[in-house]
Amino acid sequence: MKIAVDAMGGDKAPAEIIKGAVLAVQKYPCEIILVGDEKKISEELEAETCGKIFPITIRHASEVIEMGEHPADAVRNKKDSSIVVATKMVKDSECDAVLSAGSTGAAVAAAQLILKRIHGIGRPAIATPIPTPRGITLLLDSGANVDSKPEHLIQSGIMGSLYAEHVLKIKNPSVALLNIGEEETKGNEQAKETYKLLKTLQTINFAGNAEGRDIPRGKFDVVVCDGFVGNVVLKFGEGLALTIMQLLTEELTANGGAKLLGRKLIAETFRNMSKRLDVSENGGAPLLGVNGCCVISHGSSNAKEICSAIGVTCDYVNSNVFYRIKNAL
Amino acid sequence: MKIAVDAMGGDKAPAEIIKGAVLAVQKYPCEIILVGDEKKISEELEAETCGKIFPITIRHASEVIEMGEHPADAVRNKKDSSIVVATKMVKDSECDAVLSAGSTGAAVAAAQLILKRIHGIGRPAIATPIPTPRGITLLLDSGANVDSKPEHLIQSGIMGSLYAEHVLKIKNPSVALLNIGEEETKGNEQAKETYKLLKTLQTINFAGNAEGRDIPRGKFDVVVCDGFVGNVVLKFGEGLALTIMQLLTEELTANGGAKLLGRKLIAETFRNMSKRLDVSENGGAPLLGVNGCCVISHGSSNAKEICSAIGVTCDYVNSNVFYRIKNAL
Repeated sequence: MKIAVDAMGGDKAPAEIIKGAVLAVQKYPCEIILVGDEKKISEELEAETCGKIFPITIRHASEVIEMGEHPADAVRNKKDSSIVVATKMVKDSECDAVLSAGSTGAAVAAAQLILKRIHGIGRPAIATPIPTPRGITLLLDSGANVDSKPEHLIQSGIMGSLYAEHVLKIKNPSVALLNIGEEETKGNEQAKETYKLLKTLQTINFAGNAEGRDIPRGKFDVVVCDGFVGNVVLKFGEGLALTIMQLLTEELTANGGAKLLGRKLIAETFRNMSKRLDVSENGGAPLLGVNGCCVISHGSSNAKEICSAIGVTCDYVNSNVFYRIKNAL
Repeated sequence: MKIAVDAMGGDKAPAEIIKGAVLAVQKYPCEIILVGDEKKISEELEAETCGKIFPITIRHASEVIEMGEHPADAVRNKKDSSIVVATKMVKDSECDAVLSAGSTGAAVAAAQLILKRIHGIGRPAIATPIPTPRGITLLLDSGANVDSKPEHLIQSGIMGSLYAEHVLKIKNPSVALLNIGEEETKGNEQAKETYKLLKTLQTINFAGNAEGRDIPRGKFDVVVCDGFVGNVVLKFGEGLALTIMQLLTEELTANGGAKLLGRKLIAETFRNMSKRLDVSENGGAPLLGVNGCCVISHGSSNAKEICSAIGVTCDYVNSNVFYRIKNAL
């Protein structure tokens, strides 16, 4: 298996991306092609590998798409950017998948423009695995598209169900629609129309409406929503988790708990907590619905998270979910 | 000041509602009319007051609107329900405000059907105060209406700004639009159109787009969104906070921290944390944009939270925000 990794994408690129790749090839049976500035990458790679041979090669790409750029315009104009070159390698069957921690918008635009959508899919969707006390809840779409129509949400339901079953290994995964109440009659026009369509769908295990609180509780295996709502919810959760940690530290310091626990134990508790809450510990989020395997990682990913995302990418390719989606539509 | 309190609305009604009312009249300069089943209320009230005289009276209402009922239908059909009777008392100028912890949908429907909307307001909005480390962030709409149009979001911005300034006492409050990115070009059609309109508005301090993570961080004083997104975000936050507490307890138990801290200190820490995160500690959420003061409290409210919501209701009435909104439009 060959994976094209956008070595220039992410807050800590290229150093952490390269470190993550080196970790991954020792853990997973895959070959990695690091795409980006050859000189920078080879320097980092040499420093990291110390002459040892790993199944890692470099593909030069002279440009980088920055976070602030308009995704589609940047993909069209920067033909030699790392994400465009990496995505083209999938299109040309040089690689089985592409992974990027760079601009999500650019990765989605590159996939849509270069790989194109699977026939029958109106909009691709990013499926983000959210850790919960009961396991993973897959939320999609978490930001690939806004202004989704009911049929796009149905397609997300089908794709999410296949991913949950074959990659996350959840048997007969429950699929719910994110809404403002449990009853069928609740919600905006989009939600009400989508509910009707999901209810008649025989190929998934539709479990009704999910309310916001059902996501962190892990009540359903797959939760479907449009990309605007999904993105807002995920970022809100990120911010809230950080705020709670901050308040908790203040409380423990104020009431003397911090002294009793000691710095080490507090640090350990918080580290473990963060691990259990941190999406990136569960690796990358696949962009489902495009003609090829494309996985997106959080912009702040460090080496360990990149390694984990490469593991997710391997599972995704091996699961044949991409072909299963093609056949389901 | 006279406040009509829906004594039958809420998970812990009527007992906790009545206890809350008794607390409130001792704390705030107001008179309370408890609306609902006279027999039940008078029994509870006597048990609570033990013969002492408080400025609390009872108005009988024979029906109750339950949580599962269709709000508008229930309001139309149950003319003698506690929320309908309480709302009518505001309409008839018998009371200055109505407070309910019952079905939010029913309270909103009663307000819209009985009090009607303020001239110039297309949709009313529930403004929920969210506690953050930097103070309160007012999120609106948090569920009164779905499928809002840009002009409704603009009106929410104006109403939220007035409420933040005159009730929350925030000088020149910053107003942001909830979106999936900071840039003006980001978001769905609704958000992009709303941004354009907010930018040209001279009467509020528009601060651009807010991302989901900016809400718990308290980056802005007022955050505007449609009721679908607001409701999902609030419920997600509620669920996530509980999940984090649960995981944290597990972590502390597993690593021996719980033993060091002791049950009492853990309980105290969590209680204080919850207080700082709990929306209900900050009292009720006003329904802005209807012809009268209507405040909504969380369904799970206990006596302390009802008391706090009555305090919010007093502040709201005293601030003249209701008249300020009328004049601003």
